[in-house]
Amino acid sequence: MRAAVFLAPGRIAIDEKPVPAVGPRDALLRITTTTICGTDVHILKGEYPVRPGLTVGHEPVGVIAALGEAVEGFEIGQRVIAGAITPCGQCHTCLGGQQAQCGGKAMGGWRLGNTIDGCQAEYVLIPDATANLALIPEHLSDEQVLMCPDIMSTGFGGAESGQIHIGDTVAVFAQGPIGLCATVGARLAGATRIFAVDGVPERLAMSRQLGADLTIDYHKQDPVDSILAATDGRGVDVAIEALGTQQTFESCLRVLRPGGTLSSLGVYSGKLTLPLDAFAAGLGDHMIVTTLCPGGKERMRRLMNVVASARTDLRPLVTHRFRLDQVEEAYELFANQRDGVLKVALSP
Amino acid sequence: MRAAVFLAPGRIAIDEKPVPAVGPRDALLRITTTTICGTDVHILKGEYPVRPGLTVGHEPVGVIAALGEAVEGFEIGQRVIAGAITPCGQCHTCLGGQQAQCGGKAMGGWRLGNTIDGCQAEYVLIPDATANLALIPEHLSDEQVLMCPDIMSTGFGGAESGQIHIGDTVAVFAQGPIGLCATVGARLAGATRIFAVDGVPERLAMSRQLGADLTIDYHKQDPVDSILAATDGRGVDVAIEALGTQQTFESCLRVLRPGGTLSSLGVYSGKLTLPLDAFAAGLGDHMIVTTLCPGGKERMRRLMNVVASARTDLRPLVTHRFRLDQVEEAYELFANQRDGVLKVALSP
Amino acid sequence: MRAAVFLAPGRIAIDEKPVPAVGPRDALLRITTTTICGTDVHILKGEYPVRPGLTVGHEPVGVIAALGEAVEGFEIGQRVIAGAITPCGQCHTCLGGQQAQCGGKAMGGWRLGNTIDGCQAEYVLIPDATANLALIPEHLSDEQVLMCPDIMSTGFGGAESGQIHIGDTVAVFAQGPIGLCATVGARLAGATRIFAVDGVPERLAMSRQLGADLTIDYHKQDPVDSILAATDGRGVDVAIEALGTQQTFESCLRVLRPGGTLSSLGVYSGKLTLPLDAFAAGLGDHMIVTTLCPGGKERMRRLMNVVASARTDLRPLVTHRFRLDQVEEAYELFANQRDGVLKVALSP
Amino acid sequence: MRAAVFLAPGRIAIDEKPVPAVGPRDALLRITTTTICGTDVHILKGEYPVRPGLTVGHEPVGVIAALGEAVEGFEIGQRVIAGAITPCGQCHTCLGGQQAQCGGKAMGGWRLGNTIDGCQAEYVLIPDATANLALIPEHLSDEQVLMCPDIMSTGFGGAESGQIHIGDTVAVFAQGPIGLCATVGARLAGATRIFAVDGVPERLAMSRQLGADLTIDYHKQDPVDSILAATDGRGVDVAIEALGTQQTFESCLRVLRPGGTLSSLGVYSGKLTLPLDAFAAGLGDHMIVTTLCPGGKERMRRLMNVVASARTDLRPLVTHRFRLDQVEEAYELFANQRDGVLKVALSP
Repeated sequence: MRAAVFLAPGRIAIDEKPVPAVGPRDALLRITTTTICGTDVHILKGEYPVRPGLTVGHEPVGVIAALGEAVEGFEIGQRVIAGAITPCGQCHTCLGGQQAQCGGKAMGGWRLGNTIDGCQAEYVLIPDATANLALIPEHLSDEQVLMCPDIMSTGFGGAESGQIHIGDTVAVFAQGPIGLCATVGARLAGATRIFAVDGVPERLAMSRQLGADLTIDYHKQDPVDSILAATDGRGVDVAIEALGTQQTFESCLRVLRPGGTLSSLGVYSGKLTLPLDAFAAGLGDHMIVTTLCPGGKERMRRLMNVVASARTDLRPLVTHRFRLDQVEEAYELFANQRDGVLKVALSP
Repeated sequence: MRAAVFLAPGRIAIDEKPVPAVGPRDALLRITTTTICGTDVHILKGEYPVRPGLTVGHEPVGVIAALGEAVEGFEIGQRVIAGAITPCGQCHTCLGGQQAQCGGKAMGGWRLGNTIDGCQAEYVLIPDATANLALIPEHLSDEQVLMCPDIMSTGFGGAESGQIHIGDTVAVFAQGPIGLCATVGARLAGATRIFAVDGVPERLAMSRQLGADLTIDYHKQDPVDSILAATDGRGVDVAIEALGTQQTFESCLRVLRPGGTLSSLGVYSGKLTLPLDAFAAGLGDHMIVTTLCPGGKERMRRLMNVVASARTDLRPLVTHRFRLDQVEEAYELFANQRDGVLKVALSP
Repeated sequence: MRAAVFLAPGRIAIDEKPVPAVGPRDALLRITTTTICGTDVHILKGEYPVRPGLTVGHEPVGVIAALGEAVEGFEIGQRVIAGAITPCGQCHTCLGGQQAQCGGKAMGGWRLGNTIDGCQAEYVLIPDATANLALIPEHLSDEQVLMCPDIMSTGFGGAESGQIHIGDTVAVFAQGPIGLCATVGARLAGATRIFAVDGVPERLAMSRQLGADLTIDYHKQDPVDSILAATDGRGVDVAIEALGTQQTFESCLRVLRPGGTLSSLGVYSGKLTLPLDAFAAGLGDHMIVTTLCPGGKERMRRLMNVVASARTDLRPLVTHRFRLDQVEEAYELFANQRDGVLKVALSP
Repeated sequence: MRAAVFLAPGRIAIDEKPVPAVGPRDALLRITTTTICGTDVHILKGEYPVRPGLTVGHEPVGVIAALGEAVEGFEIGQRVIAGAITPCGQCHTCLGGQQAQCGGKAMGGWRLGNTIDGCQAEYVLIPDATANLALIPEHLSDEQVLMCPDIMSTGFGGAESGQIHIGDTVAVFAQGPIGLCATVGARLAGATRIFAVDGVPERLAMSRQLGADLTIDYHKQDPVDSILAATDGRGVDVAIEALGTQQTFESCLRVLRPGGTLSSLGVYSGKLTLPLDAFAAGLGDHMIVTTLCPGGKERMRRLMNVVASARTDLRPLVTHRFRLDQVEEAYELFANQRDGVLKVALSP
């Protein structure tokens, strides 16, 4: 089968691999649609290390092609997704309710395209398939559920971890795919005033379309000043960081009211410093919470419910479509954020 | 009346002031016992700015000497305490449940010895007295309740904000008065393995007496290595920071399991950096929560319950006793942590 | 001034009273719009006892006519609402976060039209005005905020106490004014499948308009069977009771999944029995939670935010309008649910 | 092998059965110690139906004798316990965090001695062994961990579901094995005033030994009056029901303050009615929460931590010891609560 493989920093390309053998707890999926994530770009650039030869990708939509003997509740031929995070469900950490950190290791639940072969391929093995396969409701298309495995789960997770309540004022810094989903999540969770910050007009337009009340182009206005002014100096109840930079992290704290929550989704590199003035020297009753994409079939079921009930429609995020053998072209476009790209759909 | 007054950086001394006039919502307390807090030392050193002429101190035990006409539920002559934090109870922030940030300003609930005259004096005015006076149960002495207004409330708050549950493993970094109270709070909240870290043998001994399971002298062992080894690499569920330094903050993150909570009590100065390796680049489902001393009469009532029911006895923390007119001597001892001092009792 | 006064069971009528004198913590409001609540009908019928001579009504929209000397932050002439529940903010219970039970007495926060004169009058005194007056944003009309003091706060409270999360399936039993607001609240909180049950076609139509996904007329279908069938036997995550009868309470339990939450808003009379089969004999990890209308100015501010941000529009609930001197006619219509009435607006 | 088998109502006796065959996800335990639970008595009496021929018992302490091929992380010969509740970890309900209701069925996680053969036998199969085997720390004896699988997990669960905080006042109705563990749990969770109610002097004495502050013999005093008097009419923050009768359930509500939580552990039969006066007609912001024994290896690990750290010692609960072939005698004693029995230890 063909698979998009990490070869070396700067190089992900199609390679030929055998269709993987199915272990007792695995399911083999024939991928029908998948996509590229910002994390994949970190892998491509060598910023996040994986072993050369690994198949990348962690957002699978497909059809069950084979099932291990210990897998329960599924049949060959069913259309399913699996989350980017595939928890085992049976370790101390999963049983303790923190499935993304499966096995008690940081990011332990992230296996696809990280520690095992991923899904930018014709076939992928889903580990602990009983816990991780989620049936797609019949009337939903691949592209309707394509965001569920990662960005919708992550973005919504940012809103959920921020414990947004009805009537909250929320700021979301960065409106890339994850930030846009955080905006949607904040709206669904009851935020009644949502500020969305980015520097790309198309993203800000999409943000308004998906639910932001007020968008701020940081090329034109200072986001911190604008948000403080718009809230009469009160600040926001919850600030969501969706980029992974010192500046956005710091801006979150600067717009946060005392007692507010900074919900962080970004992947940081280099150095991250807490501005002590905005942090009230540690006395502001602030909370900072980080969220790795929640996974598992129950999470996927709930997210597909959101789609099925038409509470949001994320299909407009799919701005470009490629065949799997065009994967290098797709990465090139996506990594450089050319042509207004938000997400690409890849079809083997 | 005599009062300990901040005159200039490096200079707190007894001054003569008029007994304050009682406004409609105030109570006048005749102080019977009070104490010095680490924050007062920051004020003394000029690290935390207050206006010259301010009476310092925010941990009052006393007797009601006068009551404003709008105060309800109290009588002259009753023995009471008030919290270091004196929320109004009626602003948006208080009604929203975050009374320490009263008025929506960072630390807004901290008024005594900060924005209004404090209690290292013969008399003190308690603002919004209906919400802030708490009757002392008859059989409890001044020294039994002396820690309730601040360090017990703060330390316990660290355990509570960390959401410690029965069976948790907890590390507490620094065993000064607040850290010791955090250790007690962790024990009361159900932690079944408590690591306490400090460099002063007397504090470590007191920590064991008050409930730590294992104490670590950082002069002798690396605390991070020791805690990771003792937990088989698993790390702790909750780490409590009780000093306010980069090193202790960072060590907290380094001993924390993925998905764990860093509960921060310290007051930081200079720069505070998040070590991205220990922070899993923002993907470890970590939570960082800060807590300013909870106040108000309901909080004080509950803390005095803990004392009355003999769940802990914090009298051993009072290592030295002074008259109010010895306040300079008391500050000198306390600020320099001489002679094994933990807390001093001051009597006007 | 004129006021609607409870005289005897079956008799509420306009009476002449002096404009009340303003105490230090009170505000006097000149009522511009108010409404009648189901609880007022219980009072009218003598089912909920109040003292004869009491002015009824607890949903005030008005203009500040006078302010007590201890009231802070408001000016005469400002347009405000106050919640049906007017907590003091300063007692143990309020400081402990349960303001509706102010003073530690069941329903202690409900004073207007219950223990003190209410607002179906030309003027009303708002007690503890600092904590209870909430400024109406300029561009909102009286009728836009008329539901905030009670039914919106109560109905949303049902969704909030049920801890509805994104992706939940929810059933709301009864679609009177409170049930309709619970439906709106469930939708705002992230429920993605909402079943609404009632027997009045106009209410079911309004329910769909306000956010229900599927409405069930209990005259035509068995609600329990229908909901279980529609969820493939799984049941709902949260069931909200909004009527106060054995049948609706019991139906809530029968459609609830193991581990689900019954959020109860109704006022029960007679006898209330837990069906042990549906309750799994006490072993189903069920939660039953009751909610009295949350009050206080912060709550009102947040609810008016919901209106101001156009997340919902409850003006269609105002089906009839009366002058205050038509109050008997208004009660007659409302108590008998004639003419498709949902809520009436009363104008002095 | 020998096993205690339910034959007919009134009849549990030793029978000979083959040692069960090990499926891929199972573990075979050789039982070293087990015990009898109140639920087993319900089975004996025919009050809780199970199929004739079923081996009873759900509190296993033993040694791994065989492991299915899909089980990970364990070795033959290790000493382990398993919880009374053995969740799969991989269904929607388990992944959603409600493992006791595994499979989405009420009590679905209770399999041992209910839907599959239990552990009052020489050997037992533990299903989904990866999720359910918990290693016993080396220095702990069988009797030290014998209460972990059920009564400690259940009793502590009552305290945890009641969300007891430091400083709470708590009442526990009934001081049988589960009620005693609820008392211990309440103390560990920070309750500072614990009222324990029962009618058996030995149980009340044990309750004081294990942590109750004040015990009430209902033969001598009215518990409701006593608790209300002792709290100056305020009532308790949390009331725990540990028997399963109308009277204890109702008493819980009658001693509960407005806004308090009734945490219910009992198994009810017949009829259960909510006293509407104590329930404030549904307007008291009360919460009623039920808890089925939490299971899974993480839960067991945490409970054994409590034992290992000497936070409590439940060995005194083992008042009688029997060999497995004396099981009928053991049931006779336990079912009739003769001879001061609290729990029996059974050794194959």
